[in-house]
Amino acid sequence: MKGKLYVIGTGPGSDDLISGRALKAIEESSVIAGYGVYTDLIAHKIEGKEIITTPMKQEVARCEKALEVAKSGKIVSLISSGDAGVYGMAGLIYEIAGNDDIDIEVIPGISAVLAAAARLGAPLTHDFAVISLSDLLTPWEKIEKRLKNAAEAEFIIAIYNPSSKKRADYLRKACEIMKPYISDDTICGYVRNCERDEEEIGTLTFKELFDFQADMFTLIIIGNSTTKLINKKMVTPRGYKGI
Amino acid sequence: MKGKLYVIGTGPGSDDLISGRALKAIEESSVIAGYGVYTDLIAHKIEGKEIITTPMKQEVARCEKALEVAKSGKIVSLISSGDAGVYGMAGLIYEIAGNDDIDIEVIPGISAVLAAAARLGAPLTHDFAVISLSDLLTPWEKIEKRLKNAAEAEFIIAIYNPSSKKRADYLRKACEIMKPYISDDTICGYVRNCERDEEEIGTLTFKELFDFQADMFTLIIIGNSTTKLINKKMVTPRGYKGI
Repeated sequence: MKGKLYVIGTGPGSDDLISGRALKAIEESSVIAGYGVYTDLIAHKIEGKEIITTPMKQEVARCEKALEVAKSGKIVSLISSGDAGVYGMAGLIYEIAGNDDIDIEVIPGISAVLAAAARLGAPLTHDFAVISLSDLLTPWEKIEKRLKNAAEAEFIIAIYNPSSKKRADYLRKACEIMKPYISDDTICGYVRNCERDEEEIGTLTFKELFDFQADMFTLIIIGNSTTKLINKKMVTPRGYKGI
Repeated sequence: MKGKLYVIGTGPGSDDLISGRALKAIEESSVIAGYGVYTDLIAHKIEGKEIITTPMKQEVARCEKALEVAKSGKIVSLISSGDAGVYGMAGLIYEIAGNDDIDIEVIPGISAVLAAAARLGAPLTHDFAVISLSDLLTPWEKIEKRLKNAAEAEFIIAIYNPSSKKRADYLRKACEIMKPYISDDTICGYVRNCERDEEEIGTLTFKELFDFQADMFTLIIIGNSTTKLINKKMVTPRGYKGI
């Protein structure tokens, strides 16, 4: 019997932002694999199912186990929060599976950047770039180049993993790189624990962002030169005329 | 009575990729506003409700009407496909509403870029940029600069609106701009009519992209230098070691 592996993004955290397709796949699966924080978020939906979890930084082992179980003929859902294809496990699953004969289906989800944008208002309604400041898997020089080029070309910039205990000064370093291209009063926004308990939302200027204390659960959005605050919401005009 | 305006992204097209929150808001609304193509996609969910549609390019009028009806005390859902905050109506609604006392809530959705990525495999698992080639609302020089800078900094690049009847050669023009920074054999992918009838999915090289016939229902994803084809899927490695 051929097994099946669903790679699922369950959205930012709230139950009602999971798609029907993801819910159906989870229901259909006898085995659920995922980092504990993510399986906990949907604990009430996976009661009675076999759970495979591995600690953080053991992503490869987690994917290998999920694939192994699927190959034995079971239906397995590997879950991530947000979208499994955005800094998620989808790529790794294909890399490990290689040319193995196994049915893999990626089910998209509402990524953190889209969820955070909606909470802030409408900051992303123009060309945007998504950059992670984590240099665990990417050389810092590449991250620097992306920050510089994105700022210079006036992209709206969404920043994942702006900071962690080991990288306390990374957001400030990133701001320094973008400084020549972004004016001090440019509107920025942050969402911490988006759509989860203790959610925090706020806006600030680019100048204030230098000293902002972010953590790994924070997503930052830096507006472009046209972004403005309207009734406390962060809004980037699309450019429609006549208003 | 204070009205309410939901600004909703209903995802790429399939019913089962709409979030529960969006479905609940639509159910709660007595009035649905949207471009006809979008309201048609969810026609079976909005039977019996008052519908406000305006033709394409009358986005301002559509938003004004939706706001006016909401102000009269009704619950209104303004719907877009994908995510309402990505090249959608969310920004325009806030701009028109200004400081008016009206309750506006943006409900995020699965944007076209995320849906197309999932169909292609896992192309977006690293830093990416989203660029629209439509110069209706953006000067072409800005689009050129964004293409150049994104390609030079090795972003994965998602292209919305790659072509239309009036702009038949825009995708080729965009490729010419990126050519100095992207090698001929870089893996690219396209999805036409993503998650809708007559969906078409394929991969090709950057060199082949120059002559690719895209239309306004096509989304293009250009990989970075590490993107590869694995079992016919487009995959960008995240960079995990040991595999």
